[in-house]
Amino acid sequence: MPVISGPKGTRDFYPEDMAFQQHIFSCWRATCKRYGFELYDGPMFENLELYTRKSGDEIEKQLYTFTDKGERLMALRPELTPTLARMVAARGNNLKRPVRWYSIPRLFRYERMQKGRLREFFQLNMDILGIPGVSADAELIAAVVDMMRDLGFTATDFSVRVSSRTLLEGLFLNAGVPEDTLGLLYGLLDKKHKISPEEFAAELGTLAKSEAQGERIRAILDVQTLAEAEALCPELPALKDLTGLFSLLATYGISDFVSFDIGIVRGLAYYTGIVFEVFDKMRTMRAIAGGGRYDRLVNMYGGPDTPAVGFAAGDVVLGEMLKEKSGQPVQPGRSDVFIVSFDANPEKFIETARIIRAEGVSCEFPLKAVGIGKQMELAHAARSAIVVFIGGNEEKEGNVKVKNMKTGEEKLIEKSGLISYLKQTGIQPQGRVQNPPYQPA
Amino acid sequence: MPVISGPKGTRDFYPEDMAFQQHIFSCWRATCKRYGFELYDGPMFENLELYTRKSGDEIEKQLYTFTDKGERLMALRPELTPTLARMVAARGNNLKRPVRWYSIPRLFRYERMQKGRLREFFQLNMDILGIPGVSADAELIAAVVDMMRDLGFTATDFSVRVSSRTLLEGLFLNAGVPEDTLGLLYGLLDKKHKISPEEFAAELGTLAKSEAQGERIRAILDVQTLAEAEALCPELPALKDLTGLFSLLATYGISDFVSFDIGIVRGLAYYTGIVFEVFDKMRTMRAIAGGGRYDRLVNMYGGPDTPAVGFAAGDVVLGEMLKEKSGQPVQPGRSDVFIVSFDANPEKFIETARIIRAEGVSCEFPLKAVGIGKQMELAHAARSAIVVFIGGNEEKEGNVKVKNMKTGEEKLIEKSGLISYLKQTGIQPQGRVQNPPYQPA
Repeated sequence: MPVISGPKGTRDFYPEDMAFQQHIFSCWRATCKRYGFELYDGPMFENLELYTRKSGDEIEKQLYTFTDKGERLMALRPELTPTLARMVAARGNNLKRPVRWYSIPRLFRYERMQKGRLREFFQLNMDILGIPGVSADAELIAAVVDMMRDLGFTATDFSVRVSSRTLLEGLFLNAGVPEDTLGLLYGLLDKKHKISPEEFAAELGTLAKSEAQGERIRAILDVQTLAEAEALCPELPALKDLTGLFSLLATYGISDFVSFDIGIVRGLAYYTGIVFEVFDKMRTMRAIAGGGRYDRLVNMYGGPDTPAVGFAAGDVVLGEMLKEKSGQPVQPGRSDVFIVSFDANPEKFIETARIIRAEGVSCEFPLKAVGIGKQMELAHAARSAIVVFIGGNEEKEGNVKVKNMKTGEEKLIEKSGLISYLKQTGIQPQGRVQNPPYQPA
Repeated sequence: MPVISGPKGTRDFYPEDMAFQQHIFSCWRATCKRYGFELYDGPMFENLELYTRKSGDEIEKQLYTFTDKGERLMALRPELTPTLARMVAARGNNLKRPVRWYSIPRLFRYERMQKGRLREFFQLNMDILGIPGVSADAELIAAVVDMMRDLGFTATDFSVRVSSRTLLEGLFLNAGVPEDTLGLLYGLLDKKHKISPEEFAAELGTLAKSEAQGERIRAILDVQTLAEAEALCPELPALKDLTGLFSLLATYGISDFVSFDIGIVRGLAYYTGIVFEVFDKMRTMRAIAGGGRYDRLVNMYGGPDTPAVGFAAGDVVLGEMLKEKSGQPVQPGRSDVFIVSFDANPEKFIETARIIRAEGVSCEFPLKAVGIGKQMELAHAARSAIVVFIGGNEEKEGNVKVKNMKTGEEKLIEKSGLISYLKQTGIQPQGRVQNPPYQPA
């Protein structure tokens, strides 16, 4: 029988792939904890209606939908924000504000396969709810920059491009663009980098009501700085927001990483204010991360008015960038200690492993009777840091031989000193989680 | 608009739920690492055929199936073992044996809702592939016992019941049960505790070819010890395996936790040898964990002959047991340090947070201008360990006031000594993951 393969657009994570993914996730979690965010999650699928009204056309077309045995229409989650908004709405005013939550959801979008895109992928989501001002937007942009720095990227590798839907709306309305054209215009802007300049010009021509209006739209899209935007239309409140935001970002010390880019609008329908995207510096790949304000979403899901801002960073583009920049991280050892025995007595293996594991040290031994040479091969395959040799003459004299697999150094130590030796080698005890204090049931 | 709720049988994990779940997962991970297992994972859905031939009727009926936009039949994964077998089969002999893998998959089964069962749940999976002997079975049973002990359970809380499909097969064949009845008989045995004694007797009567055969089957099911089994039919190889297994388990020091139970068969179709289940001591709930040998599965998926043994433990029953025994673990703080300011200057907040976060210490501050009383409320809501007060007269004199939120103790320290103070309080730096060594691309 031929081997069945996994579904197209999904990944099998063998331990070496998992080690790479876990490195990314550890950096994500570290950033979130350092910034004072707490972990939440929701179901892997939701009632279809959660997505059909809020996320916008592009995501709807990419949904994995199914009917469950109770004839309910369901969809695998394509993003986590609707679940977040639903959960916040459900708790109403009982949830203390601000909400500072993060999650690392697995998500699903049925789309054409291309570089940086898979049908099953992971994201880091960070959101702050309950804060109307740009201080929350600044905190999140600082967090995404720090997350990238944690992964080893610098200002020569990536940049954050910031704009505001409110600013664009003000400029477009001021230029005479009718309000009902704005949605289409945002959609066109969001795909500007995915289509040719000619296609873009043609579609823009169709959207504009007149030659003159087309000119005015193009003039807006040519804006490079906040000062130029102000020159086109002074006193838009969004200009003050953006200026305030950039000032806070300077205080965070990350001005080198951020710039104003009027072309950023984001594809999702629910954004209401400041929006931002993170790109590789040369912009050769799809966005690494994107986010913005969605002040009306919790309310649209039946909850109280809740200003909100958040971002999501995917694992696929980021993983590719990381491999290009740094290569694959060296896969950590499966176990720290491997026991090799001169007499291959199963009881002796188990007794020694019990002592080592009881100290929280990661340890394994051959599970079948094989010679020393084969046992050493197994120790190499397990990428163990230390080999402990038991049995034989050394043991009769109360000693064990230990070998540091990195340096190759071997030495004879007293059997009773084995644990202290292992602790001196710099092995991290992996074991025994400290039980937390409990609130009695 | 009313709030849309999550799908039936799924859970929303608010941070307090997540903290509880993460505590269970940390214990799971710690056990796996201590025993020398490495993490893997597969896709959340698979081609339907991966399940329809191997897992058995019960799981097939509970599948969440769907057709993707390419008209392929898919199913959300109801268990991880078929994915594992597929992945091992795909690598053929290139994968070094033994494989010692663990995973914490999210799984889906559409079934009637009842205590201890949900439609979306998590499992710990641990598997050893490549070892034909009971040493692997013993290692896994030792690991599941240690996992339970890590969570705080003792021999008065749970027990592992062990049997062997090969033993049952030998005894039944010896009693004249036709080979083609065995599957049905295993199915009946597996549901014995879910139906009434009368139903069980009736179904057994139907399966037996004669009154005398029924008697012989009942005599087998009444067997309490390996000695009694041997008396019924001496020299079955499975008896030697089980005796060897119990001897190894004694060496692991876990005899108090394990016992022979001829009634354990496991519901899944692919088991071939030793099987075991973990129950709460009074057996008031469904199994906490279950596993066994599946020596033919990798081969059935097109891979080389690969002896294999594994178990899975679910999070739902375990979570209920944990809450009953210990209550809810106290939810950890969202951030370790909360900054409160006498003059609510946003730049000052950011500057202080930058210094603290740069040391890897988890820290937050109010994102809007509010008075001291409200700021302290926010610090309480964040469950922060330390409050650092900035601004005011103290700062003019080069000092900051700090408050330990647990003891209530307040003191004035030199501003330049803030970081050393924080490090003395026992706060764990959460931040800056050490970047691993890389293998260049």
